[in-house]
Amino acid sequence: MPTFYAVGVGPGDPELLTRKGERILRQADVIVAPVSNPAEASVALETVSPFLDESRQEIIIHQFPMTSDPARLVPAWQEVAALIAGRVEAGRDVAFITIGDPLFYSTFIYLLRIFQVSYPQIPVEVVPGISSIHASAAQALVPLVEGDERMIVIPATAGVDKIVDALARYETVVLLKVKPVYKDILELLKATGRQGNTVFVERVGSMRQKVLTDFGEISAHSPDYLSLMIVRSSS
Amino acid sequence: MPTFYAVGVGPGDPELLTRKGERILRQADVIVAPVSNPAEASVALETVSPFLDESRQEIIIHQFPMTSDPARLVPAWQEVAALIAGRVEAGRDVAFITIGDPLFYSTFIYLLRIFQVSYPQIPVEVVPGISSIHASAAQALVPLVEGDERMIVIPATAGVDKIVDALARYETVVLLKVKPVYKDILELLKATGRQGNTVFVERVGSMRQKVLTDFGEISAHSPDYLSLMIVRSSS
Repeated sequence: MPTFYAVGVGPGDPELLTRKGERILRQADVIVAPVSNPAEASVALETVSPFLDESRQEIIIHQFPMTSDPARLVPAWQEVAALIAGRVEAGRDVAFITIGDPLFYSTFIYLLRIFQVSYPQIPVEVVPGISSIHASAAQALVPLVEGDERMIVIPATAGVDKIVDALARYETVVLLKVKPVYKDILELLKATGRQGNTVFVERVGSMRQKVLTDFGEISAHSPDYLSLMIVRSSS
Repeated sequence: MPTFYAVGVGPGDPELLTRKGERILRQADVIVAPVSNPAEASVALETVSPFLDESRQEIIIHQFPMTSDPARLVPAWQEVAALIAGRVEAGRDVAFITIGDPLFYSTFIYLLRIFQVSYPQIPVEVVPGISSIHASAAQALVPLVEGDERMIVIPATAGVDKIVDALARYETVVLLKVKPVYKDILELLKATGRQGNTVFVERVGSMRQKVLTDFGEISAHSPDYLSLMIVRSSS
């Protein structure tokens, strides 16, 4: 039956795609890749390009408005949902690709809600992907959690007070999107004595990957927007 | 250079292995699979058996003592570390397989610590795997987190008070190993009005997978030890 697939392509290394993701991408009739910044290539599309065949597959790069204004974003998502639904209803398999995992801080979640409400007759299947957290831990060779430990994941943009709270409570704190509050986080890690238990990872799995474990180097670095930190209560 | 690889094989579906995991497992000279219960087959080994070749590869199923007593566990881990290190030093690539991700609630973490202290000269590489959390969300078609939301992961065995605390604070609470405290969790979810926002997943990715979203069915179920719950603050 023609299906709408969401494929998590992992952090950016084609080898970290799952076998199922590769199979779906080779079989699909249509590939949809979202981009929000026209100056940036789609990382997801670059990651899976070795598996695509433009002579046989329709490849749609869908440009989203650069805004967080729902009045502009919602119609843009409804438009791409209609485009995907139309192709599935015409008998074609459509694969929407997302970096990381489709259900973990991904724009696919908007699409899923639209499909559940407006196109309940269309089968939706999600292929999970390696998130940047697991890929980063592997590159840095740091354990995330073990035994009865707890792990909390916080987009750093949620606010410094929430980071303070998490650091006081949990064995492992993963901070995503650290760039806008990087200086605040560095101060906080110093104040709580976590300098030796922090790993910084940027653009994991890509050619521009950077893994820093020395707090001096972390402090001197200017992070880009695809970066995260793993903070452990002990090393 | 001969290397000690830790390969996360994902939740149990061979298609959810990464392409890199498959390549390493086909190339490795030695495969090490841990089992703790002699009555149970190694789920990790079953998952990757399509990629192995017993005529060419040494496959070691290493039995661990069924205990949490460090006095018995530590020597068992040191023994397997020595076995692996000896083969790597003899020029062979060794792959240790773990279900899920090697750095996320995995016994590989013990091995990593031993290698960092006792065999620092041996290269260690970790291949991340799809964790049961991402695989379960995909099967249940439930978003984990989006935007500025936070997610906390708790082994339910950490204690009911910690689950109470997490439910009061975070948008997404993932409860692992729910079996021993299942009745307590059900009471708590009722008391906090989360019946409609809970997904139960057991043995994700296997033939015996069970995904329950109806709270009546969840309440009537008797979970086995490979089960988790995803609780959202809203659906």
